[in-house]
Amino acid sequence: MEWQTLKGEGERFFELLKGDVLFLFVIGNTKTAEVKGITVAGANPELIKFTPPADVELLHYGECRVIPFPPATPDGKPTPAIITYTALRLTDVPFLVVDAGLIVKPKTPFVTINAPVGENIAERDAMDLDRVEESFEMAVEFGKRISKSFDVLMIGESIPAGTTTALAVLRAFGIDGMVSSSMPENPIDIKLRVVERALKRIRGDETPLEIVAKVGDPVMVGVCGIAVGSRRPVVLAGGSQMVAMAHVIDRIGRKDTAIATTVYVANDSDSLKYAPCPVLVADPGLDKSKKPGLRAYAEGFVKEGVGAGGATLLAYARGFKKEEFLKEIERSYETVIESKL
Amino acid sequence: MEWQTLKGEGERFFELLKGDVLFLFVIGNTKTAEVKGITVAGANPELIKFTPPADVELLHYGECRVIPFPPATPDGKPTPAIITYTALRLTDVPFLVVDAGLIVKPKTPFVTINAPVGENIAERDAMDLDRVEESFEMAVEFGKRISKSFDVLMIGESIPAGTTTALAVLRAFGIDGMVSSSMPENPIDIKLRVVERALKRIRGDETPLEIVAKVGDPVMVGVCGIAVGSRRPVVLAGGSQMVAMAHVIDRIGRKDTAIATTVYVANDSDSLKYAPCPVLVADPGLDKSKKPGLRAYAEGFVKEGVGAGGATLLAYARGFKKEEFLKEIERSYETVIESKL
Repeated sequence: MEWQTLKGEGERFFELLKGDVLFLFVIGNTKTAEVKGITVAGANPELIKFTPPADVELLHYGECRVIPFPPATPDGKPTPAIITYTALRLTDVPFLVVDAGLIVKPKTPFVTINAPVGENIAERDAMDLDRVEESFEMAVEFGKRISKSFDVLMIGESIPAGTTTALAVLRAFGIDGMVSSSMPENPIDIKLRVVERALKRIRGDETPLEIVAKVGDPVMVGVCGIAVGSRRPVVLAGGSQMVAMAHVIDRIGRKDTAIATTVYVANDSDSLKYAPCPVLVADPGLDKSKKPGLRAYAEGFVKEGVGAGGATLLAYARGFKKEEFLKEIERSYETVIESKL
Repeated sequence: MEWQTLKGEGERFFELLKGDVLFLFVIGNTKTAEVKGITVAGANPELIKFTPPADVELLHYGECRVIPFPPATPDGKPTPAIITYTALRLTDVPFLVVDAGLIVKPKTPFVTINAPVGENIAERDAMDLDRVEESFEMAVEFGKRISKSFDVLMIGESIPAGTTTALAVLRAFGIDGMVSSSMPENPIDIKLRVVERALKRIRGDETPLEIVAKVGDPVMVGVCGIAVGSRRPVVLAGGSQMVAMAHVIDRIGRKDTAIATTVYVANDSDSLKYAPCPVLVADPGLDKSKKPGLRAYAEGFVKEGVGAGGATLLAYARGFKKEEFLKEIERSYETVIESKL
């Protein structure tokens, strides 16, 4: 299969993706990523802060600028931005980057909403509530102003350790389910230890934005604000993190949102069934790839990020076939990754 | 008359404004504004740096945030953003702010292209060429990515002392004509003295971007980059400054650009006839206003800025009539200006 509806009315969102789409990439950092062993979104801990800006440089230029090579896991599995880059290259869909709490800024144009870098939620509140409210208002305003001329907004993310803050937000809402991971051996113990410490600060009567300020991250502020402000349907392109954000959005009162992710997340995590909205799953077919670095996705590595699942769905909605899309991902892999080796 | 073509094929651009329009406001600062008597774009010299961010806050929220009241001349003539705000309120056209060298950032979402604040061109080069080239490339990329889903981009500006840097760029290209001014007594002597000093650094064999780096300002980098990158026709919403930018754009090799400005600029300056592209002129009818602060526009004050002429044209293209538009500007004046007195 190329894609399927996992939950709710997926077909309508797939149809919307044939129209005028704006793809937004909301990227940022949480110092939760500094907890040892929590993420592999970077070849080493020092490089993790470069992953989000390097990801969007790849989308814009087919190469990275803040670091000389594309983000990868310590053993060389490439960033999922390679899939998204391929879909954008093929479909030529307009896109914009949104800075939501970056440590290092990308050498690309980007929108800012003045969000802070997120603190390590094991130690303290992620962000000041005042600052969250201000950035959220800016994100709402941006979503409101830009959405009107499009049929649908698609929103992806890049934030190392984002599944841990997502888990904390889900638990703070009283929702079960385990989040996905960029490793086949999901470091659940480490994540749970961080989340447990974070949840000690939750009283239980917080508003959704207060929960994000306490145990979330700045990317949630950007994604949820834009979605709430949007005057058009919104597709959240991501896995477990987007489930947490969909709950924030839902509780603030916005409907007409769906989640689109990869089949690799669907196979790995039960969090998708806790989504308060339709869920669509796309298969980029990497299990059939002749490149081991890409086949690794089907073997439990990386799985999702930078809107890869939504980007795959977008390519299929615009008529690209699975085999063709895989070939194009491999072509991107050759020009973007192998040429740098 | 509501509007007319001053030069070239204006009708086609007017028709485009009936379709999907994205309005961009490229704002920044040049320290040339610190030259005594060169600009009245601020109630006093200390406030001049707040004018661009306050202008776009007004567009977004109908009120200013970096300062407690809207930008005005020392004797209280309100910013032309009041006209643009009215047109955006009536037409609900999507818009985005672009930071191109701001000293003070607005409390709104905005796009950044990493442009520097412009230096005082009387004293030194406006910007480093490397930095200009990097920001220009980002502006091109932004224009390329965002333009596709629209029928036309309209670009306005806000940069105090921008007519002086515009005059320097025009002279560096060997073009005659005097620029407009926000004062009925255009301080031509002061402008010419600054321009003369700036032009001493021009050899005569510079590329267009080198001229901008030497005697221009950062807003030119943003506007010209976006226009060059755009895949759709571009309307430059402004007066003399846009004539200078149209020449930069033209020399870089992009066509399909027009200028839209107010009748007040057309009455004040001969620079429009040196435009290398069609020129459209709109009349917001402020001479008939019952508000002295607005009538002042027709008496030689303020005249243009923050895309006011283009915004007026946009309102007319979308079916608003001149009398109705004037009434709505007066309504904005009451809620935005008079309520703060």
